Amino acid sequence: MELATFMQAAINEAQKGRDEGGIPIGSVLVHNGNVIGAGHNRRVQNGSCVLHGEMDALENAGRLPASVYRESVIFTTLSPCSMCTGAILLYGIPHVVIGENQTFLGEEELLKSKGVKVTVMDDETCKTLMKTFIEQHPELWNEDIGE
Amino acid sequence: MELATFMQAAINEAQKGRDEGGIPIGSVLVHNGNVIGAGHNRRVQNGSCVLHGEMDALENAGRLPASVYRESVIFTTLSPCSMCTGAILLYGIPHVVIGENQTFLGEEELLKSKGVKVTVMDDETCKTLMKTFIEQHPELWNEDIGE
Repeated sequence: MELATFMQAAINEAQKGRDEGGIPIGSVLVHNGNVIGAGHNRRVQNGSCVLHGEMDALENAGRLPASVYRESVIFTTLSPCSMCTGAILLYGIPHVVIGENQTFLGEEELLKSKGVKVTVMDDETCKTLMKTFIEQHPELWNEDIGE
Repeated sequence: MELATFMQAAINEAQKGRDEGGIPIGSVLVHNGNVIGAGHNRRVQNGSCVLHGEMDALENAGRLPASVYRESVIFTTLSPCSMCTGAILLYGIPHVVIGENQTFLGEEELLKSKGVKVTVMDDETCKTLMKTFIEQHPELWNEDIGE
């Protein structure tokens, strides 16, 4: 699996969110080398407190049998918060690829403790997207992480 | 706070979900003695894999400042799964009141380990709702918990 290609798809989602005036975090769910769900944070756009990037990708993938989740990889531009981590654990997704965890460190230790493989790419584009957004809209970012 | 009154509101949501042909789990978010968000599982109705009862209640409450979540109580007819647990932790909701945990035991230990107060009412109506549903639709229930 070409990690950079799928991370780019997640970044494209994050940039779409930014261009809509939203929080620039994107995610794709990949099964057998195909993107089966793509999404981005919808707090601003939909007034949603549950549609983080990963949740939106899962939602857009639709209802799936457990067997599909268990063979999938989820890519996210930012380290997953406790809600998104819980969703990944609920559906048994075995591998999470993270763009960066410098601007926010989520529940990576919980994921690992449950046997989920965690790959951090330390991607500069992902870091710049978040750094720029947090500087410009600290109140939106704090709201998104319950602070 | 009258626990039974708010649990009844969550049960009403669960029954609404059942009457729509959905999975009978309901939830309400309560702040200062008022229901500020009510919801029920939307897997069947909306084709949603993220709108469990608790998530739907949070979503229907809309965007809220962190301070409101931190003074709120969430009522749910069934012990919260890892995703809903993660959402409760993300937003720092300090108290979770659970209808029952006999048909499904969620991440109550994780909640407690993070300082969240967990009250289990062991409610017969909640148990009967789930028991009846699982007997009639085991495949939907398994899908909802990623099994």
